[in-house]
Amino acid sequence: MNNKGLLIVLSGFSGAGKGTVVKSLLASHKDEYCLSISATTRNPRPGEENGREYFFKTVEEFEAMIDKNELIEYAKYVSNYYGTPKAYVESQLEAGKNVILEIEMQGALDIKKIYPDAVLIFITPPSAKELENRLRGRNTEDEATILARLSRAYDESEGLEEYDYIILNDEVEKCVERIVGVVASEKMKTANNEELINKVKEELKAYSKGEQ
Amino acid sequence: MNNKGLLIVLSGFSGAGKGTVVKSLLASHKDEYCLSISATTRNPRPGEENGREYFFKTVEEFEAMIDKNELIEYAKYVSNYYGTPKAYVESQLEAGKNVILEIEMQGALDIKKIYPDAVLIFITPPSAKELENRLRGRNTEDEATILARLSRAYDESEGLEEYDYIILNDEVEKCVERIVGVVASEKMKTANNEELINKVKEELKAYSKGEQ
Repeated sequence: MNNKGLLIVLSGFSGAGKGTVVKSLLASHKDEYCLSISATTRNPRPGEENGREYFFKTVEEFEAMIDKNELIEYAKYVSNYYGTPKAYVESQLEAGKNVILEIEMQGALDIKKIYPDAVLIFITPPSAKELENRLRGRNTEDEATILARLSRAYDESEGLEEYDYIILNDEVEKCVERIVGVVASEKMKTANNEELINKVKEELKAYSKGEQ
Repeated sequence: MNNKGLLIVLSGFSGAGKGTVVKSLLASHKDEYCLSISATTRNPRPGEENGREYFFKTVEEFEAMIDKNELIEYAKYVSNYYGTPKAYVESQLEAGKNVILEIEMQGALDIKKIYPDAVLIFITPPSAKELENRLRGRNTEDEATILARLSRAYDESEGLEEYDYIILNDEVEKCVERIVGVVASEKMKTANNEELINKVKEELKAYSKGEQ
């Protein structure tokens, strides 16, 4: 009912399966959704392409983007910058694509301040036990790392109420369906349907003036 | 994710096909949805049953309900009272049913003040022309009545932005699906998932304290 896309901010505990969900969502809905591409000053790794995995920038270029307010949000990890270029997100939204931004809580809340219409979704496994199982199932992390992630998850859970939606990831396909359902529902909000509302009003106005 | 039902307030232009949509929704989702039953002081018509079409009350009984604040909203048309009994709505919500309240704009906005969690949905045909066609298609109203309804629709369209959602009724089944989708989405709102959020927080807290 509205041609512009929605900005979908996805967060979730590390181990909640967010990455798999996003990949599955993009694969099954590639005409309606796209992923925001971050800018970074880190060097491209073998196989990475500029404009696909990241927009690769020099420090000077990145800092110029900061100065010109061309980033929705940015942060510095270790000695590299990472940020979300506004131009890419907005051109995709204008083209009618729903843009997914995978980002952690603080960034998510910052984005809501700039884009109040952004839809903030927090993805959670059904229980902490399940989160632990998934972290252990990866077989890539030692005990200390797993416990650190669970402890970090507790810190993150404190800001959960700030999100618009909490979506269970019990099964990937179901989780994708829920996200798609939430987005479809958001598009029916009156706030996202100014055009339709104005059209109906104008048409009815003509009747009430006896013009038809 | 939440056991309590949602209060769904449905409004729409006269002729928007609201009645048909509600009937179809209740028929296909009778375990999850129910219709709010109004109280009235008018006499039962042949075939009407107390507690099915209406709760039939004497004027004294109805005025006692007003005094005891037992009605969510009420109005007097001609010489009869009509109102929405709180007890019935709340018992159904507690039982996990989504309660549909078919009500006009002013009543809808009053309800949102008392139940901020109520979901206000406005149903509209795709265009004013379509609304006119439907009104004419009924073959039950004369020209003056049709024009009066269209003019009234214009007045009503002024308050449309106060609703949470605007849902197209181009086809009955699609419209029902959209309503069901919106309700499913509302149930995933963080505000409607205190229990799940608290459960996850409690579980994670135990980890962060090393209790597991």
